[in-house]
Amino acid sequence: MNQEQRQAIYQQAKDWVLEAGKTIRFKINDPLTISTKSNPNDLVTTMDRDTEYFFTSNIKQTYPDHAIVSEEGYGDELESLDGTVWIIDPIDGTMNFVHQKRNFAISVGVYQDGIGEIGLIYDVMADVLFSAKRGEGAFKNESPLPQLSENKSFYESILGLNHFWLCDNRLVDEKVMQSLVKTVRGTRTYGSAALEFAGVAEGIIDGYMTMDLAPWDIAAGIVIVNETGGKTTNAFGEPINMLQQNSVMTCNPVIYEQLIEEYTKKGRK
Amino acid sequence: MNQEQRQAIYQQAKDWVLEAGKTIRFKINDPLTISTKSNPNDLVTTMDRDTEYFFTSNIKQTYPDHAIVSEEGYGDELESLDGTVWIIDPIDGTMNFVHQKRNFAISVGVYQDGIGEIGLIYDVMADVLFSAKRGEGAFKNESPLPQLSENKSFYESILGLNHFWLCDNRLVDEKVMQSLVKTVRGTRTYGSAALEFAGVAEGIIDGYMTMDLAPWDIAAGIVIVNETGGKTTNAFGEPINMLQQNSVMTCNPVIYEQLIEEYTKKGRK
Repeated sequence: MNQEQRQAIYQQAKDWVLEAGKTIRFKINDPLTISTKSNPNDLVTTMDRDTEYFFTSNIKQTYPDHAIVSEEGYGDELESLDGTVWIIDPIDGTMNFVHQKRNFAISVGVYQDGIGEIGLIYDVMADVLFSAKRGEGAFKNESPLPQLSENKSFYESILGLNHFWLCDNRLVDEKVMQSLVKTVRGTRTYGSAALEFAGVAEGIIDGYMTMDLAPWDIAAGIVIVNETGGKTTNAFGEPINMLQQNSVMTCNPVIYEQLIEEYTKKGRK
Repeated sequence: MNQEQRQAIYQQAKDWVLEAGKTIRFKINDPLTISTKSNPNDLVTTMDRDTEYFFTSNIKQTYPDHAIVSEEGYGDELESLDGTVWIIDPIDGTMNFVHQKRNFAISVGVYQDGIGEIGLIYDVMADVLFSAKRGEGAFKNESPLPQLSENKSFYESILGLNHFWLCDNRLVDEKVMQSLVKTVRGTRTYGSAALEFAGVAEGIIDGYMTMDLAPWDIAAGIVIVNETGGKTTNAFGEPINMLQQNSVMTCNPVIYEQLIEEYTKKGRK
């Protein structure tokens, strides 16, 4: 994908994201039909489905040769990332959407042959758009995001991580993760993977790690974090596979090595 | 304190809070002098001190017979809450202030003979003021906050709690708290006690519990949560003592009993 093609798709994707966000804001106080998916806390609403349909129908009409990976079932069943692939979460942070009516995001990534070209994360209620094109930097609305600080000590870092890391789990010894919490300066949990990626890109948190995310939760975030000099792998330092669920570690590169070597790998089950 | 007196002090307190917030927003990108207090992560900045001085000097001049309890040392050393007492945190969430330049609050409570009369929590960067007067309801900016929902199941609740509850600690068996995390719908950590109290009052989280807070962290929040029908005690259901540090549980009354009886009291060390 050359720069001109990237710019054209970016502009179209951005227009759709802003339009979808405007619709969600307009309907934010409408009654919701809420269902559950894999478990009682895995929520989905008509708004998730309607928003996804808006994207998939527009993409299929405008770019019939592009493929789509998306959360709520309107996308394609892909076995490879060949060609141009849109990876979409219509509402990332559905629990926040339902309970808080804010702190959720639309997340759209566009990948070419497996390489992230475009990332858009739209904090709908705050009307803040994080965006990036590969090799062209990341932005918060119209402002360029600076490169992540190199003057960051591990002990002064703030990490985004959910509380399950500190409970008995299938990935790591929770005792090791508990010692991490006591070592860094602070820990936060916001409930939207996309917004936590955006937080890493902006430097308001220095890292974010999570146990089990789908491609649509992270596709846009990876592109945006890349453009600010951040690093993303699975929680144990291995490459992300965008065709399956992954554990995720995305962070300022200054703290990456220590996080992986002294914590997640050390505690790995 | 009668309604007229309460209204007059409320109006003055609100004016000062908004003015202090405006000053902070104006200076938000100025270089900071950051020091630490009780431990390397207990931060204080010149902005905390200057903001507190703004409040204490104004209060002493305008209300020479009022007492002040405040975080950074410009207040009084009190042995009782007799009379009118202002309880002030100039910047609640200093770590967020330093690292994020948002997600912090000015917190001002006014108590009469130990009873909370006025609460003001100002999310400075979002320019959102939560306020309450005893018996007169709570507000988010100009909008009245409704009473907390009675249609809330424990299993569908979202709790604010920091990660230390899940690590070895002096108060409760962390295993019991880990089972709580796996029982409720979700958990969040925002890093400002005042804003978490405001979140409970607004119903965006259903409860917030913390191990060790000072009076200035909670004085305003208690008044605001009270006015939306929420309940605040220490983490074990005992009354808060506003002259010392406390553990804190503030929540929707629908989940209070279960939180205390089946978790904190059950796990109490």
